[in-house]
Amino acid sequence: MDLETIQHPKFLKSYSHKQLDELASDIRSFLISKLSVTGGHLGPNLGVVELTLMLHKLYDSPKDKMIWDVGHQTYVHKILTGRADQFDTLKQFKGLCGYAKMDESEHDVWEAGHSSTSLSSAMGMATARDLKGEDFNVIPIIGDGALTGGMALEAMNHIGHEQTDLTVILNDNEMSIAPNVGAMHNMLGRLRTTGGYRRTKEDLEYLVKKIPAFGGVLSSTAERLKDSLKYMLVSGMFFEEMGFTYLGPIDGHDFDELHSNLTYAKRTKGPVLIHVVTKKGKGYKPAEDDASGAWHGPGPYKIESGDMVKKAGPPAYSAVFSNTLSKIAEKDERVVALTAAMPGGTKLDQFAKKFPKRMYDVGIAEQHATTMSAGLATQGMKPVFGVYSTFLQRGYDQLVHDVCRQNLNVVFGIDRSGLVGGDGETHQGVFDIAYLRHLPNMKIAIPKDENELQHMINTAIANDDGPMAVRFPRGNGIGVEMDETLKVLPIGEWPVEKEGSDAVILAFSTMLPIAKEAASQLQQRGISVRVVNANSAKPLDEKQLDEIAKENIPVLTMEEAVLKGGFGSAVLEHFNDHNHIGVQVKRMGLPDRYIEHGSPGQWYEELGLTAYDAAKAIYDMVPSQKQRA
Amino acid sequence: MDLETIQHPKFLKSYSHKQLDELASDIRSFLISKLSVTGGHLGPNLGVVELTLMLHKLYDSPKDKMIWDVGHQTYVHKILTGRADQFDTLKQFKGLCGYAKMDESEHDVWEAGHSSTSLSSAMGMATARDLKGEDFNVIPIIGDGALTGGMALEAMNHIGHEQTDLTVILNDNEMSIAPNVGAMHNMLGRLRTTGGYRRTKEDLEYLVKKIPAFGGVLSSTAERLKDSLKYMLVSGMFFEEMGFTYLGPIDGHDFDELHSNLTYAKRTKGPVLIHVVTKKGKGYKPAEDDASGAWHGPGPYKIESGDMVKKAGPPAYSAVFSNTLSKIAEKDERVVALTAAMPGGTKLDQFAKKFPKRMYDVGIAEQHATTMSAGLATQGMKPVFGVYSTFLQRGYDQLVHDVCRQNLNVVFGIDRSGLVGGDGETHQGVFDIAYLRHLPNMKIAIPKDENELQHMINTAIANDDGPMAVRFPRGNGIGVEMDETLKVLPIGEWPVEKEGSDAVILAFSTMLPIAKEAASQLQQRGISVRVVNANSAKPLDEKQLDEIAKENIPVLTMEEAVLKGGFGSAVLEHFNDHNHIGVQVKRMGLPDRYIEHGSPGQWYEELGLTAYDAAKAIYDMVPSQKQRA
Repeated sequence: MDLETIQHPKFLKSYSHKQLDELASDIRSFLISKLSVTGGHLGPNLGVVELTLMLHKLYDSPKDKMIWDVGHQTYVHKILTGRADQFDTLKQFKGLCGYAKMDESEHDVWEAGHSSTSLSSAMGMATARDLKGEDFNVIPIIGDGALTGGMALEAMNHIGHEQTDLTVILNDNEMSIAPNVGAMHNMLGRLRTTGGYRRTKEDLEYLVKKIPAFGGVLSSTAERLKDSLKYMLVSGMFFEEMGFTYLGPIDGHDFDELHSNLTYAKRTKGPVLIHVVTKKGKGYKPAEDDASGAWHGPGPYKIESGDMVKKAGPPAYSAVFSNTLSKIAEKDERVVALTAAMPGGTKLDQFAKKFPKRMYDVGIAEQHATTMSAGLATQGMKPVFGVYSTFLQRGYDQLVHDVCRQNLNVVFGIDRSGLVGGDGETHQGVFDIAYLRHLPNMKIAIPKDENELQHMINTAIANDDGPMAVRFPRGNGIGVEMDETLKVLPIGEWPVEKEGSDAVILAFSTMLPIAKEAASQLQQRGISVRVVNANSAKPLDEKQLDEIAKENIPVLTMEEAVLKGGFGSAVLEHFNDHNHIGVQVKRMGLPDRYIEHGSPGQWYEELGLTAYDAAKAIYDMVPSQKQRA
Repeated sequence: MDLETIQHPKFLKSYSHKQLDELASDIRSFLISKLSVTGGHLGPNLGVVELTLMLHKLYDSPKDKMIWDVGHQTYVHKILTGRADQFDTLKQFKGLCGYAKMDESEHDVWEAGHSSTSLSSAMGMATARDLKGEDFNVIPIIGDGALTGGMALEAMNHIGHEQTDLTVILNDNEMSIAPNVGAMHNMLGRLRTTGGYRRTKEDLEYLVKKIPAFGGVLSSTAERLKDSLKYMLVSGMFFEEMGFTYLGPIDGHDFDELHSNLTYAKRTKGPVLIHVVTKKGKGYKPAEDDASGAWHGPGPYKIESGDMVKKAGPPAYSAVFSNTLSKIAEKDERVVALTAAMPGGTKLDQFAKKFPKRMYDVGIAEQHATTMSAGLATQGMKPVFGVYSTFLQRGYDQLVHDVCRQNLNVVFGIDRSGLVGGDGETHQGVFDIAYLRHLPNMKIAIPKDENELQHMINTAIANDDGPMAVRFPRGNGIGVEMDETLKVLPIGEWPVEKEGSDAVILAFSTMLPIAKEAASQLQQRGISVRVVNANSAKPLDEKQLDEIAKENIPVLTMEEAVLKGGFGSAVLEHFNDHNHIGVQVKRMGLPDRYIEHGSPGQWYEELGLTAYDAAKAIYDMVPSQKQRA
């Protein structure tokens, strides 16, 4: 069918499973075709075609609330709710959001880019329903990986206790973003196969040995126990223990199984969990074959061959980060790397290849990763937690309470700082300076390019004076030459990139080239602008700031981060606290709002962060005789 | 024995259980006596006397690492490690810390005031040990309540997966700070008694019905299954599922049981969990009888009668918060209260008495509470999360990603803001302005007294424009009259408390009386100081700031919160962004360090936050002709 004609999912009510099969096929073709141009989360969406269809057939959206834990898994849902015609603009500036988005449709009742939020929000919605005496279904759809996130377990604990009516779909694709970690995953594995039975037998023997009463009747009891143990493991005892009615595991691509289990769940009181096993990338061979790798969220690709359209270019910042760690780890046995389910994104999978025993993927568990790093540091290790800026937000309390308060030598390799492009709002790495800067003992280094990045990682590991963050942007470096030998840089001494005497720009990372371009533009108008690589947001280069204040020339600060409480704010604090009153400062950066998807360059234009804007800001501050010059 | 003669716990090695009994009795008498004067966490420490003694007898501290999840449960440990002589100064300024503290003793290998961190730090220490090829034991001691914290479950998942050698002591006192919440707790309950068997039977019937193969042989299989199910529940299947060897439950006051199980655990490879059941307040009847209430952490009391020494005074801020909620909830059915295991501390237990169905205690689960609030708000409810400032740090990402980003009407009643006194470092509520101010859509109201608090709570609930925090300090109000009728206050319009024309102090909450005192002192020297109740940190009263800038008089900002990124910083940003260059601003507040225990007043002296300091700061800023006046 022509998917662009779909306005509302209610047409599915009358669809037979055979019709659904055909529609599923159409949807797969549509997604494979559209995403070959725009890129997007192909694998995860191909995996939930049948599940999404059956949910919309059996439930009444938006009255019934489907809460997608993984917001990037809503493409099929978007097609069924009238948005097929917008897929050409997927994840692009002002285009269709790659995640659920309330503004787009009444059928999007919750928005999430970070995982593990759906059970809590579902609990909130179901509780509201019960308090108001309303009648609707609440259906969180959560991945197996998301269950390793502590907040999902907090919610499960609470839901089980309250016995709230809701139906959790556990979408077990055997492999979320990375191969899953943890006991929870092992348990799901046992549920999937009877291979787990092997462990059961060991358990059994242990149990039987432990209690004399049973030891005594071993021969007759053992066989009985063995059967029931096996049975129970396969039956989702874990979830039953948590107070849920457990159904499954079922084949998430089989309409009959989906239909009968969802129908049963609807009739069942209290919390139900349906364990649905799906295959990521289902229906597109290249994506099926490498579901956790590049096909999780590829860029453009050729449909026939499955070849990705690769851009040549400098190495990615993530790769430089990981390679540098490997280089250092060869000589320094103290170095240990940690990731929270992002070995691919952070490129720490490369580190793990060389040092498999010195890399820990802890699951989607930033709280645990942060405090485990602290624990490692108490014993003289040099833990390096590679983490996206936006996800480190999950470890804020652990930063405050465990790492910074105890002043432990933990290194944070903060990836995807600043604007992140297509992922947009939920993933912007723009709060980090503001949430790190006020923590005592924390240092925040910000390299200008991939070469400075490698030196700063080295510097951070050499540092024995407490925690240090090195923050770097998404994407590729700028193509500078890489030094052979790693240096230890002085932190809090900002290099001058370009001399100048009429004004100063303090900029870092992605803003630095823009600052230089602005300086060039002004040079042509006879205004001589100094450009400083402000490569640490904490400590500031106080000496240099004092000298600038003495010169009393205008200062422009530029940051791809929130202005409130950010780097420019730190500069203001310094000038004020040191009585440098009257220094003209203009702060450029991100306003007090959330920034949606779109390329950073488009947002620079939109928000006034271009070289032109910078040049104009300086021009407006320099004395008028200069302006005439 | 004279406990003050103890220097090192190694003397315990040769102690018989009988000698330990006597020592336990001495320690109890000591604690009951000392804490009757200083106050402190009596109940929790009386509960772990035998456990602590046996740990120190069997392990070699500090080589072996005992990690107390609940830092306030280390009093016995402190006595055994040579600190008995300091108990007269417990929790007092420059005195003995009420939590584990590395600076105090090499036996304190980890510090924690927030719960649920011990498993992660233990994992870090044990991993470091294994990587370095060292040989020591790691023994986290964690409460049953702390297991509801997501990060503990994240860690358990990871430990079970890695099969790291460590021995977890699950100190199950049946009731941590509040009666425990959640499925996890129910499960522990089933482990404690065979009462859980009742549920087992239901499970059984359900399970048996589900699979035809079993349904067919129901009569013969059912009895067998029943036995083994019961057996398994009592045997800690949950923990076994997570990959732990489970031992227990055992009596935590019985040296023989402790001895044999700890010894067994030492010999066992991989992670072991010993389920120890203890009684809070053990050995002191008043504390035993009301373990979760006032005796968790009482102030001074009379030993014989168990009467607490009560100070008469104005109502506590927490009580005003809770009472106001009740008042509003009577008329507004949308109001729902949430707490994360702090119904007593937040006084929301009072609200719960009136509205049992509209109050949710979610366990030590701030992440879940924050996002569940967001879920409630999507359905038009008015969730009010009553939470200590320091604990809301655990919900930072949920604030960024779920509440503020979706601009939902969630109210945060932020208790214990500012300095908290005896609990010190780990509990200071001093980061909240800095971590909330940069979040788009967030409003931060800060009442000056208990009367303004009630109006602001009312204002926050009346607000339909996104999230709003109302932050108030620990302790009692200042004794003002309470208005009968609740008002809706304009947020972002700061009332002038005292007129003046030579300078302005912008202060809020606890700093306001100090500001007024400073103004009085200066009045006597002929300097007329305006005092403004800056009762919202976001939005600022921009109009008033602009007028002050026009007057061009010196400004002093005062805040009991960190200066970096804080309120004063916001004022600087405003002046700068609106070209009010040259306004003299002096910011008073907390420096860039962690602040230890001690009364706020003592810290004001120490850190220069007194009326004298404020007066001097103003004096130094006003023009010299004024100074001569």
